[in-house]
Order: sequence, then structure tokens, then C-alpha cells
Amino acid sequence: MNEIKIFSPATVANVSCGFDVLGFCLDSVGDEMIIRKTDKKGIYITKIKGFDLPFEPELNVAGVSALTMYKAAKPNCGFEIEIYKKIKPGSGIGSSAASAVGSVFGMNELLGKPFNKTELTAFAIKGEALASKCEHADNLAPAMFGGFTLVKSLSPLQILEIPSPDDLYATIIHPQIEIKTSEARAILPKNIPLSDAITQWANFGSLIHALHTSNFALIESSLHDAIVEPYRSQLIPYFIEVKQAALQAGALGAGISGSGPSIFTLSKGIETAINVEQAMRKVYSKTAINFDIHISKINKQGIKILS
Amino acid sequence: MNEIKIFSPATVANVSCGFDVLGFCLDSVGDEMIIRKTDKKGIYITKIKGFDLPFEPELNVAGVSALTMYKAAKPNCGFEIEIYKKIKPGSGIGSSAASAVGSVFGMNELLGKPFNKTELTAFAIKGEALASKCEHADNLAPAMFGGFTLVKSLSPLQILEIPSPDDLYATIIHPQIEIKTSEARAILPKNIPLSDAITQWANFGSLIHALHTSNFALIESSLHDAIVEPYRSQLIPYFIEVKQAALQAGALGAGISGSGPSIFTLSKGIETAINVEQAMRKVYSKTAINFDIHISKINKQGIKILS
Repeated sequence: MNEIKIFSPATVANVSCGFDVLGFCLDSVGDEMIIRKTDKKGIYITKIKGFDLPFEPELNVAGVSALTMYKAAKPNCGFEIEIYKKIKPGSGIGSSAASAVGSVFGMNELLGKPFNKTELTAFAIKGEALASKCEHADNLAPAMFGGFTLVKSLSPLQILEIPSPDDLYATIIHPQIEIKTSEARAILPKNIPLSDAITQWANFGSLIHALHTSNFALIESSLHDAIVEPYRSQLIPYFIEVKQAALQAGALGAGISGSGPSIFTLSKGIETAINVEQAMRKVYSKTAINFDIHISKINKQGIKILS
Repeated sequence: MNEIKIFSPATVANVSCGFDVLGFCLDSVGDEMIIRKTDKKGIYITKIKGFDLPFEPELNVAGVSALTMYKAAKPNCGFEIEIYKKIKPGSGIGSSAASAVGSVFGMNELLGKPFNKTELTAFAIKGEALASKCEHADNLAPAMFGGFTLVKSLSPLQILEIPSPDDLYATIIHPQIEIKTSEARAILPKNIPLSDAITQWANFGSLIHALHTSNFALIESSLHDAIVEPYRSQLIPYFIEVKQAALQAGALGAGISGSGPSIFTLSKGIETAINVEQAMRKVYSKTAINFDIHISKINKQGIKILS
């Protein structure tokens, strides 16, 4: 096998009470990439479609991941990378993570899988860091493993795969405004009340239990973020209205995807997810803000080979 | 049935990263109580053995629980309560909780179980509040339900039963010093760094996942409390030495039981729990402090009928 085509999915990080540690994987949105073995050594980005991104590997998220793995693997070949980018950069659903995992996943397949998924994620962290200026695996982990993932620690990198009910759907709206990551970070408090923190870990522990036991009522009552959302939601116009509309339409919960501006919701069943989509769409349709909206089953497989 | 004899177990609350929400139940230590239906209406505490506690129901933890349930149930009878107290008050392993759940559990059995366990716990909260000056269910929930319990919220009272591996043992040492609850509370910070809080909920979510999946390595790497233990452990002489000895002897983790002074450890298998017991014993044997020490399987049943 000298060439592989892959689908690298969009993801939601910072899932409510699981801020900074819990993410999940989407299946209706994602990039496609072609990775090709070459006799000439080195990493070459030969095609980029969809968005205007740098071709120099050192300046490209997929390129930096690839270079990091390439140095570790020391293969007797090189790789060409074609990127068919469909996830908008800056949308808050793991655009850079999809690029970062895509290149290393594809190269690993072509090399006969010398690395496991956690090792691949560690390489991808270096690519992600180029985009987000800090090392984290919140979007990488669900893109690589699929389903819900809990990044327990970065050093050593520990990723837990959390089971989830089959009938769980996400509806995600992307209002086309720009939120600077630096601003989203600066708005967070350095210190928080112990009592709020206890509420957060009670909810987060309950959410993990709810996902294990497919307890939708408990997913609903656990999907709260009393700590980060009150700050960051100020950066997203109509956040409160959209969230309220989604909950009224039957969503189990709603929150900021990543550091925004996308807003995610979770619902039981496709019918509710569609109702939620219509309710969220209605709110932004009354404004001057353009938006994309997606409905997606939770993607339990994660990144995958197309051909 | 006019009389029932019950075993009301000791419990560990504030389990490391699950501070204020996670507890577990012991089986080798607990109170015994006899509850008896009487024609004469009202609640009467007729015998107390083991420790010197008030006989007036309004001043007795088991009495206050009983009175609260009695008012709700409005039965056509009264109850006598005999308390054979074996858990030392103030030891940090749920002495008051055992009393509080015991009376209502016994009365409920004699009345044909009009209330479920969550409702009984809600009555017991009123008894517990007499002892600890605030309403909480950290020890009540594991005493009532057995195993590991997560108190998701008090209002409404939501208690989750978390599964756990069969081969999990606790070793608990009670150094006979007094820690005033007021002091244990006053020493806690009002605000904590957000970064520490994130570490705590990453660990807590991981611990819930680890208990669900019987992953002992993950239980071990999750049993950390970066927030409360550094403060409260100052109130327990030789805490650091005991914890270190326990971990060196193979314990998966160690922490403060409740608000102390007892120190709990968890181990895989009885042999390790015995090694841990010897290591902890050795530390306190070199000091002037008297202590009790217990090894216990996690008690999955909770409070039970003896006859």
C-alpha cells in the first residue's frame, strides 16, 4: 500500500463540566486527506483545497505532526500529503486537530502501524500546538479514538475511552464570528470558588457514570458548566438565547464547543436533534450573523480509512 | 414483624479527588441497633451501649432521624430504639451517619418499606445535621446503599451507585486524636486555582471510569487530591509518613477519611491490604498516639438486617 485516503473528523472539546478534559467525535463533518509514500525522503504538502493554509510543513499543522512522527520513525521513504480541508479553521470544532491527527494516522497505516493511537496523538500534539500555541489533546483524542474521550493527563499522555449510548446525537451551530483564542483564555478566572469546583466535579463524575450506564436523564442533569461558560459565553452573541431554544426543543444540554464560537448540543435520538437544529437555526436567522449548522451521530470510530 | 436487629456500617467519605461527593462502605466495622414497634406512640431510645450519648430523641442523631421519618410516616404505633455503638464518635468513619441511617432503615422495614433508600437518606440527613452542624449525605449514602456512592446533589437529593471491583479492600487507621469539625472546615481555602480544579475533575472522572471498568492501575493514578488534602493533612500528625508507608506497601492510594483523623487506603486484594495495615501500624507504633486499625472489604450491600 503506497497511498491512503482518510477521513479526519471534527470534534467537540470542553464538554460542559468536562472543561479541558472531555471531548467527543462527530461523523458528519471532517477533512479528507491523501497520504502517499515517496522514494524521496521528507514530508511534502502537495495540495491544499478548501482553505488557504501554508504549504511549508514547518508552518502547517499537519506538516508539523508529520515531521514529528517522521523523526521518530526514521522511515526509508518520504510522504506527500494532500489536504481537502472541510472544517473551517477557527470554528471551534477541532479544525487543526483534524489536520494534526490526519497526517500521522495516514503515515502510520502506510508504515504498517508501528505506533499505537496514544503515540500518534503525542505526535499530533506538536502540530496542534502550532495552531493553538499550547500543547493539549482535547480535540486530538476524540478525533483519533472516536466516541467520548477523557484526557486524564498530558504527561504522561493518558487518554480514556468513555463508552456512550448509541442513540446520542449532537447538533452544532457555528456562528461565523471570530473569537481569538488569546481572548477566550484571558477571560477565564485564575481562581474559582471551591464550592463551584465541587459542583463541577460532582457533575463531571455523574456525567461519566451516566455515559457508562446510558442514563439520559443523568446526562441531562450533569451537563452543566458553572465555571467557564459564564465567562466565555459573553464572547458569543445570542449564546443564552440559542442555548435556551435548544433546551426547550428537547436537547439534553448545550455548551460552548472548544473555545467557541460554535455551540454544541446533545440530544437523545435523531428526531430531537433535528428539532434542536431548527430551534437554534431560528435564533440566528433573526440576526445578521451567518452560520453553519450540523447534526451528527457521535462517531465511535474516529479517524478512518476511506480507500 | 415487631422487632428487627440491624448492622449499620462505618463508611469513608471525601474519597480523595471525590471530596464532598464520593464515599464507600465498610463491612468489618459498624453499629448494631434493635428497633421495636410499640403500641405507645412516639420515639423512645431505651438503651445505648458503647459510648455515652443522649437518650432524648431530639438530642440524639438516631432519634432526630427517627422523629423526622415518624412525622412523615404518621404510623399507628411508636418505636423503641436500642443502640449498640461500636464506631467511635469523631473517628472520621461515619459514626453519626451509621446512627442516622440505622433508625430509619429499621423503622421502614417494620412498617413494610413505605420509603425507598433515597427517601430514607433524606430523613437521615436531619439526624446527621445534629452531629455535623450542616446537611450532607457523604457518609449516609454509602451506609444506606453500600459500595461506592456519588452524592450528585442534595436538593434534589440524587445518589448514584458506582460499581466497583470485587477485589478492592480498604485499610483504615484511626489515630486517637481529636479534630474539631469546625477547625477542619476553617482550614479549607474559599478559592482555589482553576488549574488545580481541572486536575481534580480529570482525576475524579477517571476514578469513576476506573471503578466502572475495574481498572486498578487507573484507580491508583486517579486517587489524588491536590486541593483539600494539603490543608487538612496538617491536622493529622504523621499523615505524610503513614501515607508514604501505605503506598510503599502496595496501596493504590491513601487519603483522609471524612474530615479525619482516620486515614483510609485502598488496595487490590486482601494480602496487600494486610501488608498496608502492618506498614501503617508500624508508623504510629513508634509514636505516643493510640490507634485502631481495620481491614475491610468494600461492603456492597450497605446497612443490613441481622435478625
